[in-house]
Amino acid sequence: MAGGIGSRFWPMSTPECPKQFIDVLGCGRTLLQLTVDRFKRICPLENIWVVTSEAYADIVSEQLPEVPVANILKEPCRRNTAPCIAYVSWRIKKQNPKANVVVTPSDHIVMNVAEFERVILSGLNFTRETDSILTLGMKPNRPETGYGYIQADLGCATARNKEIFRVDSFREKPDLATATRYIRKNNYFWNAGIFLWNVSTIVNAFRVYQPGIAEIFERLMPVLAKEEEQEAVNREFPKCENISVDYGIMEKVEEIFVLPANFGWSDLGTWGALHERTPHDAYGNACIGKNISVYETRNCMIHTTQERKVVVQGLDGFIVAEKNDTLLICKLSEEQRIKQFSE
Amino acid sequence: MAGGIGSRFWPMSTPECPKQFIDVLGCGRTLLQLTVDRFKRICPLENIWVVTSEAYADIVSEQLPEVPVANILKEPCRRNTAPCIAYVSWRIKKQNPKANVVVTPSDHIVMNVAEFERVILSGLNFTRETDSILTLGMKPNRPETGYGYIQADLGCATARNKEIFRVDSFREKPDLATATRYIRKNNYFWNAGIFLWNVSTIVNAFRVYQPGIAEIFERLMPVLAKEEEQEAVNREFPKCENISVDYGIMEKVEEIFVLPANFGWSDLGTWGALHERTPHDAYGNACIGKNISVYETRNCMIHTTQERKVVVQGLDGFIVAEKNDTLLICKLSEEQRIKQFSE
Repeated sequence: MAGGIGSRFWPMSTPECPKQFIDVLGCGRTLLQLTVDRFKRICPLENIWVVTSEAYADIVSEQLPEVPVANILKEPCRRNTAPCIAYVSWRIKKQNPKANVVVTPSDHIVMNVAEFERVILSGLNFTRETDSILTLGMKPNRPETGYGYIQADLGCATARNKEIFRVDSFREKPDLATATRYIRKNNYFWNAGIFLWNVSTIVNAFRVYQPGIAEIFERLMPVLAKEEEQEAVNREFPKCENISVDYGIMEKVEEIFVLPANFGWSDLGTWGALHERTPHDAYGNACIGKNISVYETRNCMIHTTQERKVVVQGLDGFIVAEKNDTLLICKLSEEQRIKQFSE
Repeated sequence: MAGGIGSRFWPMSTPECPKQFIDVLGCGRTLLQLTVDRFKRICPLENIWVVTSEAYADIVSEQLPEVPVANILKEPCRRNTAPCIAYVSWRIKKQNPKANVVVTPSDHIVMNVAEFERVILSGLNFTRETDSILTLGMKPNRPETGYGYIQADLGCATARNKEIFRVDSFREKPDLATATRYIRKNNYFWNAGIFLWNVSTIVNAFRVYQPGIAEIFERLMPVLAKEEEQEAVNREFPKCENISVDYGIMEKVEEIFVLPANFGWSDLGTWGALHERTPHDAYGNACIGKNISVYETRNCMIHTTQERKVVVQGLDGFIVAEKNDTLLICKLSEEQRIKQFSE
C-alpha cells in the first residue's frame, strides 16, 4: 500500500512526493524501497504488488524498476485501505486463487529485518494451512495514543503455531489512561497494519462484511489484467465506500489471529518517532543529512535531504527540516501543528 | 571601496559574493547599489569610481551597469584601505587634478538619505575651498566597542562651516569602560570611514605620511588610464604596505576636521546590527524574505535571499539565515562565533 500523502512529515513529505518515496533515514533507499527490500528473500519480485494513487505510479516504477509495471495498481482516488486491499486481492486472485498474501504499508520502518523475515515466514506457514486472517501485533513500549491496539488471548495459542494467538478484540486509538492500562498488561499489542491471509480468505471476508465493495470488484473481475482494466477501475473504484480494512473487516470478523512480534517497528508517523528511531549523538540529536554541524544543541531532529551545509547552535528539542524551497524550525513538542504550518 | 569579504555575515555573505553585493535589506537593491544611489544627486554617474578586488569586478559591472567599466579599478590583492584609496586618488588626479572627492565604504546603510545628501554637499562645499581632510562623525547611541571614535573640539567650529570642527584625536576601538566614558561626553563620534577631500590634499598626505605607497603610484602615474595600467598595477600594487587609511594617514595628519552627522548610519557589521536596523514585527522579529511565517517567535533575525518558504516556531533571540546550500541557526548572542561555524 503506497498511496498515503504523509502530511505530518512536512516539509520533507509533500503531496507531490510523500514520505514513502523519500529516503527518510538518509540511508540511500526510500521507505518504499526498504519495504520491498524486506520481502526480497520472502517472495520473488514478480509477486510484489504495489497499490498507489495514479499520481504516484511513475515514482513507484522509477523507485522499483525490478517490480513489473503491470504489478503497480493505480487507484483513481483515495478510498482508505479496504478498497485498496480489495482491488489488489481480486487482481491477485484472478492470477492465482491460492495465493498466500502479506499486506503491508510502505512507509513504516523495521530495524531488525532478520526477525521480520522470520516472523513473516512463520505467519505465512500458518495462513498457507488455514483459512484464517492473521495480523501482526507489535510489542508496545509506551502508552502510545496514536495507534490501534490488538487484545490477544495469550492463554490460547493455536495448535499449528505456538506463537500465534486468537484475537479477543481490536481497540481503536485509546486515550492516555486507557493506553496506560493496556501496556501494564502483556496481552495488548500495537496494530501495525500488516496482515497475512490466503487471497480466498480475504475475498470471502469482503463478500460477508463489505458486500458493496465485493460487488464492485466482482463486476470488475472480467476486465482485470486486461487492457480495459484501468478505464473500468477509474469508473468503478470511486463508488467504493471510504473505509479502513480495520474498521470494515478486522473488527467484524469472528475468528482472527495475532502473531506478537518485536522487530523494531515504527510507523514513523511523526518527526518525534523518526527522532526516536534514528541514531543519536551524545546529546540526543538525530541528524540526517551529509553536512550538519551542531553546537550546544540537544534533543533535536535535523533532516535535510540535499547536500546542504547546516549549522545549528543553541537549540534544544527542535525539529529542523529542510526540503527544496522550504524550511521548518519547530519545537518537537509542537509538531501536531505542522499541518497548520504547511498551509 | 568595494573589496571587503564580509565574513561576519555568513552564510548570506560569502567570499564568492560578499555583503556589499547582496540585497541585505530585502529591498531589491544591493548595498553597493544603494551606496551608488545615494550619490546620484550629488555627482554624475561617470564620476563614480569603484575599487574592488579583481574577483569581484564582474559583479560590480553587472550591479552598476550605469557606471563606466573604466571606473572600476581592480586590486590584484587585498592591502587594506590606504593603498586602495591611493590607487583611486592618483587615478582621479590624472584625470582631474582639482577633483573634490568623497570616499565611502560600499557595505554600510544610511536610513535618512536626504540628510546624508545634505551633509555630503555641506562637506564638499568645505573641501572645495580648503586643503583640509574632512571626516564624518556619527553621533553614537551606545558604547559600541566595534568602532573607532573621533574626538572633536566642539569649541572650535571652522570659520567657513559652522557644523565642521577640528579633530582633537582619533581613538582606536575602545574597551567597554572607555566607550562608555566617550558617549557620556558629547564630543566623541563614530568613525564611519567616510572621508572628503580635494584629490591633491590626499595625494600630498600620502607623500608625507606614506611615502612608500606614494612612490609606487608616482611610478605608476604614466600608465594610469592607459592599456598597460592593469598589468602594471598587478605588478606594483602588491608591493604596497598593508595598512588602513585611518592608521596610515588620519591619525598622523596635523590638521583634520570632522562633520558630526546623524543620518541613520550603520556599518551592518553584525547580524545584530542588521536586526536593529530593519523593521520589526510586534515581537521584535526582523524577517527579510518573501515567505516567512513565525509562531511564538521573538527577537529573531530571519534572512532568506531566495523565494523560500520558511516556518519558524518557538525561537527567541536567534539568527536564521539561509543562502543557496547553507543554513545557519544560531543565537544572536553567539554571532561572534559565525566565522568559526563557517569553517
